Amino acid sequence: MNIILADAEEFDGNKLLLSDHRAKHIVKILGCKEGDTIRCGEINGLRGEGKIISMQRKFPFHVVLEVELMQGPPQKTNIDLLLALPRPIMLRRILSQATSLGVGKIILIHANRVEKSFWDASLLESGGCREHLIHGLEQSVDTRLPHVEMHQRFKPFIENTFPEIKNDYSHLLLAHPGENTTLSQRILSVPSKTLFAIGPEGGWVDYEVTRLKDSGFTSFSIGDRILKVDTAVIAVHSRISAVVEGLS
Amino acid sequence: MNIILADAEEFDGNKLLLSDHRAKHIVKILGCKEGDTIRCGEINGLRGEGKIISMQRKFPFHVVLEVELMQGPPQKTNIDLLLALPRPIMLRRILSQATSLGVGKIILIHANRVEKSFWDASLLESGGCREHLIHGLEQSVDTRLPHVEMHQRFKPFIENTFPEIKNDYSHLLLAHPGENTTLSQRILSVPSKTLFAIGPEGGWVDYEVTRLKDSGFTSFSIGDRILKVDTAVIAVHSRISAVVEGLS
Repeated sequence: MNIILADAEEFDGNKLLLSDHRAKHIVKILGCKEGDTIRCGEINGLRGEGKIISMQRKFPFHVVLEVELMQGPPQKTNIDLLLALPRPIMLRRILSQATSLGVGKIILIHANRVEKSFWDASLLESGGCREHLIHGLEQSVDTRLPHVEMHQRFKPFIENTFPEIKNDYSHLLLAHPGENTTLSQRILSVPSKTLFAIGPEGGWVDYEVTRLKDSGFTSFSIGDRILKVDTAVIAVHSRISAVVEGLS
Repeated sequence: MNIILADAEEFDGNKLLLSDHRAKHIVKILGCKEGDTIRCGEINGLRGEGKIISMQRKFPFHVVLEVELMQGPPQKTNIDLLLALPRPIMLRRILSQATSLGVGKIILIHANRVEKSFWDASLLESGGCREHLIHGLEQSVDTRLPHVEMHQRFKPFIENTFPEIKNDYSHLLLAHPGENTTLSQRILSVPSKTLFAIGPEGGWVDYEVTRLKDSGFTSFSIGDRILKVDTAVIAVHSRISAVVEGLS
């Protein structure tokens, strides 16, 4: 936790009373005492500092902060993620890691090799992702929650929903093993906004690759190695970031 | 498991008898039957195919393969990792993920913000890392185990050991927040071999940064976001890969 985050309604003017895991973190992990100043932020709002004006250092922990929030959140990366729904344990990690990298939007879709049962995960119920997104924000000193959307059927998504989404992006990129084209051959000028697609464990089936390409995605390879989905998300995001940085 | 790996001494001529988790994987996950062919390899040796010539499909599972190994392992990436020892749960994941990315050598060192107790992990005993390295090989269809070495004291490492190691590398790169230099400004020609350094949770202390720089490391930033160590390892490796690919 590199920043203490709270919802707007938790603030009482410039005071913030914490009595949950955040209070415990301030006491036990950070080892703070009264008068200390720590990084704070409002979820989807500003960042700044909080001064500890009172605290209880043993269970039940509580901490009262006097906050001053003046600084905007860091830039998102302008690189969004289209992801075939992974198993819940992996999705949790990806939500947090992608958020920490600065992904602004995560679109979860179905694919042939996604197990139907993955869609029943409690993680996907209203607000179920939020905890993991907040972990990513707390890690990377960000405040803005990424937007997460879900599309439980591939064909209606690619035919009806995607044509509207795609207008937001200058680059639609599909990581696909066996391709000869490299990423730097696909990104020749600085993108306004990029969407990259990562398939399920076992990969996209041919039909899905065809539909994605017909919808505007261009494919590239990052080598022959088969990566786990969570490794691939970070690796491809980072490679795109590096290519864009080199062009900037 | 995208390849079934076995030690040289497990092969009886071109026959391989499996009766452990690998046999279970072939039966239960891959759903193979007699006559099917699957990817096999010898650890630190060749890759190829194995034909199932007999099997028992219920507990205790066993599978006999007739193998033909003709193909060399994939290239390693020529990008090695110098890593401040992380906590065991994170180290396990990093060993596997770094191996799957093709890292050939992982050098674990002490740093001021590494908890002393991390060095007591059973994972660090002789052979304790092997299982996690093999997971990475199985994922990425590789056979060659990365070399892992450990240096439990920073000062003797940087003063006595590192001067010999450094001759193996054309580029020594230190990911360091707050730096203005980007990676593509640090890699101007295709490296023969690169070593990148990732600090502990909380970062290197100033003394360590100074010693690393005095020893030949040049620092760069990948932005202001603070990443978890496991995310940072993949992100920096991937960014270096992308910059090198763009120069090739």
